Amino acid sequence: MRETTFVLAPDSFKESMTAKEVCVAMEKGLRKIYPAASYVHVPMADGGEGTVQSLVDASGGVIHQREVSGPLGQPVLAQYGILGDGLTAAIEMSSASGIHLVTKETRNPLRTSTYGTGELIRACLDQGIRKIIIGIGGSVTNDGGTGMAEALGATFLDAYGQPLARGGGALDQLAHIDVSGLDERLQDVELIVACDVTNPLCGEHGASRVFGPQKGATPEMVRALDANLSHYADVVKQQLYKDIRDVPGAGAAGGLGAGLLIFTQAVLRKGIEIVIEYTGLRDKLLHADVVFTGEGGIDFQTKFGKTPYGVARAAKEAGKPVIAIAGYVGEGIDTLYTEGIDAVFGIVPGAADLEQLLREGPENVERTTENIARVLKLGLIS
Amino acid sequence: MRETTFVLAPDSFKESMTAKEVCVAMEKGLRKIYPAASYVHVPMADGGEGTVQSLVDASGGVIHQREVSGPLGQPVLAQYGILGDGLTAAIEMSSASGIHLVTKETRNPLRTSTYGTGELIRACLDQGIRKIIIGIGGSVTNDGGTGMAEALGATFLDAYGQPLARGGGALDQLAHIDVSGLDERLQDVELIVACDVTNPLCGEHGASRVFGPQKGATPEMVRALDANLSHYADVVKQQLYKDIRDVPGAGAAGGLGAGLLIFTQAVLRKGIEIVIEYTGLRDKLLHADVVFTGEGGIDFQTKFGKTPYGVARAAKEAGKPVIAIAGYVGEGIDTLYTEGIDAVFGIVPGAADLEQLLREGPENVERTTENIARVLKLGLIS
Repeated sequence: MRETTFVLAPDSFKESMTAKEVCVAMEKGLRKIYPAASYVHVPMADGGEGTVQSLVDASGGVIHQREVSGPLGQPVLAQYGILGDGLTAAIEMSSASGIHLVTKETRNPLRTSTYGTGELIRACLDQGIRKIIIGIGGSVTNDGGTGMAEALGATFLDAYGQPLARGGGALDQLAHIDVSGLDERLQDVELIVACDVTNPLCGEHGASRVFGPQKGATPEMVRALDANLSHYADVVKQQLYKDIRDVPGAGAAGGLGAGLLIFTQAVLRKGIEIVIEYTGLRDKLLHADVVFTGEGGIDFQTKFGKTPYGVARAAKEAGKPVIAIAGYVGEGIDTLYTEGIDAVFGIVPGAADLEQLLREGPENVERTTENIARVLKLGLIS
Repeated sequence: MRETTFVLAPDSFKESMTAKEVCVAMEKGLRKIYPAASYVHVPMADGGEGTVQSLVDASGGVIHQREVSGPLGQPVLAQYGILGDGLTAAIEMSSASGIHLVTKETRNPLRTSTYGTGELIRACLDQGIRKIIIGIGGSVTNDGGTGMAEALGATFLDAYGQPLARGGGALDQLAHIDVSGLDERLQDVELIVACDVTNPLCGEHGASRVFGPQKGATPEMVRALDANLSHYADVVKQQLYKDIRDVPGAGAAGGLGAGLLIFTQAVLRKGIEIVIEYTGLRDKLLHADVVFTGEGGIDFQTKFGKTPYGVARAAKEAGKPVIAIAGYVGEGIDTLYTEGIDAVFGIVPGAADLEQLLREGPENVERTTENIARVLKLGLIS
């Protein structure tokens, strides 16, 4: 008989375990019941927080650190990953330009800039990278990706030929975009942007109106930022012959989606699809008897592109059963059963506060997967 | 193919669901996946709280109420059950003489009496009952069962021929026990006492020393109560020719164990064994494909005679798989796997306080059993 094979493809459990740590705990539990089985670890992510870590872990890559400009110009130590193939890099924009890098009091989307994200991209170019996967969740910026472009050599000038101040608040002064200094290597590098939102750059569903307030924008700021991004789109169309105003996803990350489309060879894709591709999940699923996935929380939102949903869909294409575990099992999981998740189990052992549960994540994952394995082993009711 | 049969044999989830309610929720979850299966409800208990309810529910019996004397003489509305056969009654002594009936401030084991428990027994005799199952957990008394005996016609007299005050504090004055008035019907009725402790009546491991303090006894009271029960044992031996001093379980429930052995046709048995017998669990297990059990909490203590342990042992005799669920999964459940519990699952969906979990018990049981059924249905890994 062929060896039983378990494919373990969880997301991270936020603030508790990386996806890789979840894999290890899952295997520990399952191995008690299936000591001779094969365990294939595929630490997953969905393009959001933990994506770099998971892609690096899944491919045997390396995490690098680099000091870059934070959202307000202060130095921050940001990360990027080089995947196991040595040719693909992974970036999370939030590592350089994220909301966690600015205190609530100093948040000001008129001034925050994606410059540091551009520096991270440049660092990848310096390493001879050919593809960059970039997650753009968690931004505190609203600059249309102009900061990112500036770090890569573009110049944004006012009517007097003077460089603009950084941040979306200055874009009303934009008169000319000079791309003559733009890093030429960008033309040979594909940027694969993990983007699950379809917001356009401007207007009612645009970056400023929808995401501005959570970045600290007052109603007045929202109006100014939206008008500025609209003006920016006009200048781009006129001078660079690119019409990105209404491209779905242009409004992601304060318009960084637009900036990447304008200044780089970017394609926008669903985060989970990118991770599935770059972890080689589909191939690995072919040999699975059972697939385990999971995430810190699973509920009705899971089917909007979260990891357990993506894993389940891929597993169903291969005809494989999928069992999910979660630290929090919320409303609406019934809707997941038809999407390929065969069963969902919470890992929580009893009444407890969140802090304790975050601390005891590994042992709770282990206990839960062991007991699921015990039921699988019964394997008698059809 | 024969119909799939699930035997559902949980204990109550204390403060959340009766055992019967747990059965209903379990079936609701399982039925989503196995709509055509048979579901056999066997609401269980282990001789502790909920035993009367479960025996009544399991047998299709009736709960009766009766006003009796509480531990300090105040009237309390106590319960007893008549099982479906109409010949067997079930009593919990705590219903008449329990610790929850006395405030912390007024607890005084010198004075608390089992008189009300005797009244409950008399109420059963009045109904023509032939067997009484009596659970003796949760007592607030330390009277050696003298109150119980008094309610049934015995008299406890001092050297002057005067009746003693009720409670263990007066037993130092005991000179004569008059059993001439004892209810004659007791001779034809078997009392099956659910007793999981083996404490003797007196001494280091006796009722007063071990259980007195939790009933409000000071060190001085403990010494007095222990001496009094020892004197009581002497008088009983001398006058009634019964030596119960060192009988295992005589010290249960403040010596009510001893009192029942002295004044009634009592046999002491493990609570879970009694419930297994009177619910007919063993017969029902013969037709089971999978057995579900559960309790509010499952941990290393479960194997000391708790329901999931008893159910699992009985199921193993019949060669049936057992899956347990619990609101709280504690330390040491590994030790249960070798005792016949094949798998244990917590039902808690995430970080939550106890109150919320108690309220949401049924839906959490339902979700958990549904998902276990989903894994059973996969049934593919051997």
